[in-house]
Amino acid sequence: MKHARVQFEGVMHGAQERDGQLLLDDGRLVAQDAVTWLPPLSKLARPRTILALGLNYADHAKELAFKPPEEPLVFLKGENALNGHRQFTKRPAGVQFMHYECELTVVIGKMAKKVRRDDAYDFIAGYTVANDYAIRDYLENWYRPNLRVKNRDGATPLGPWLVDRADIGNPMGLALQTTVNGQVTQSGNTKDMIFDVPFLIEYFSSFMTLQPGDLILTGTPDGVVDCKAGDVVVTEIEGLGALMNTIQ
Amino acid sequence: MKHARVQFEGVMHGAQERDGQLLLDDGRLVAQDAVTWLPPLSKLARPRTILALGLNYADHAKELAFKPPEEPLVFLKGENALNGHRQFTKRPAGVQFMHYECELTVVIGKMAKKVRRDDAYDFIAGYTVANDYAIRDYLENWYRPNLRVKNRDGATPLGPWLVDRADIGNPMGLALQTTVNGQVTQSGNTKDMIFDVPFLIEYFSSFMTLQPGDLILTGTPDGVVDCKAGDVVVTEIEGLGALMNTIQ
Repeated sequence: MKHARVQFEGVMHGAQERDGQLLLDDGRLVAQDAVTWLPPLSKLARPRTILALGLNYADHAKELAFKPPEEPLVFLKGENALNGHRQFTKRPAGVQFMHYECELTVVIGKMAKKVRRDDAYDFIAGYTVANDYAIRDYLENWYRPNLRVKNRDGATPLGPWLVDRADIGNPMGLALQTTVNGQVTQSGNTKDMIFDVPFLIEYFSSFMTLQPGDLILTGTPDGVVDCKAGDVVVTEIEGLGALMNTIQ
Repeated sequence: MKHARVQFEGVMHGAQERDGQLLLDDGRLVAQDAVTWLPPLSKLARPRTILALGLNYADHAKELAFKPPEEPLVFLKGENALNGHRQFTKRPAGVQFMHYECELTVVIGKMAKKVRRDDAYDFIAGYTVANDYAIRDYLENWYRPNLRVKNRDGATPLGPWLVDRADIGNPMGLALQTTVNGQVTQSGNTKDMIFDVPFLIEYFSSFMTLQPGDLILTGTPDGVVDCKAGDVVVTEIEGLGALMNTIQ
């Protein structure tokens, strides 16, 4: 099932996808462009920790002239960075490189501590799409993504849907694609991750407890380009939907 | 006023300091060693973002053989890392360097966005003490504190108290001290910060929104030493109290 969280006529609602429309939790059926989309987080489990991978596709590491990491390169994000489907993200004044990043995002479903790789999928509630914009001008050194690169207000659109795990067989073989103003600029597949989803859950949970609602943004393949004000950026993952964002 | 959050007879309570004892929110007066201390966070405002500074005292940067930063070196922490007063923190097996770090911690009191330096104190609810342990073995390069360095479960004791801002005149002149098994090993003063508290609030709020309950751990002066299992580490800041932790 596909779950969303939206604001309609000033009130927040849970919603589900129904025949191309939105079925609100009060039973009304509304058009997808009639609501304000919020990040598809559970009302009961706000993320305590938002983990994001750097250089988790070898081709993207090569594109940025880095060697692939031997251990996951991870940074945390604040909730302030999250944004919804069909929303706007600001390009800071005077920068040269604002790169989109289409990323498979894992939503944790239950407390995970010292989980083995073989059991990892049991701890996943579902998946969504992130566009984890980076302002590369502010990157200071070999993968130290400072806050100004990765944690600006609204710089991480998420959605449109939280798709139940059961609806996605193997998440390690999904096509990813980004278009800018309708032109395909990024194309990849989650099978090319260096550290796959079960590995990441085993690795994180070996020294920290993951909680329901926590997010893991699993990195992006190559094909990032600079985006300008007015560009419409759509990041899409097979089975998960297309997340639209406009640069402001 | 000094606020705590404790568990007593299996129930969570807000509490205040009263004549060396704890006044629970149900009116009972209990001994400080009769309760389990939790991080002194508001029940209403769990932190959405926990910011921590690296190398924010020039003497500590020198001690670690780094040049002082020209812009704040910041990383985010997950709530999983927080721990209470009088609790235990695990030393991972096989590591050589587990360093305590005594840090003045700012608790945000109201939403802060594009705040000017001169108004910064208005957005602070109060202060507490953090001991932001680092496993230096896992540090990979010039200040990239990966998750295993800084985000292990329970690796950041916080407390004992959240002390109201009004009770601390100028936070930029407070003595800090750490003792290990009763011996003073670290001694400094918040006046020696490279980036002071008003600067940090102006800087962060220029590109991200701070929310009530958010924390800023402002870095540590020089004097870090390796701690072994069984060591009792007390980090103390003038006017804020003494935070005790035992290495396990």
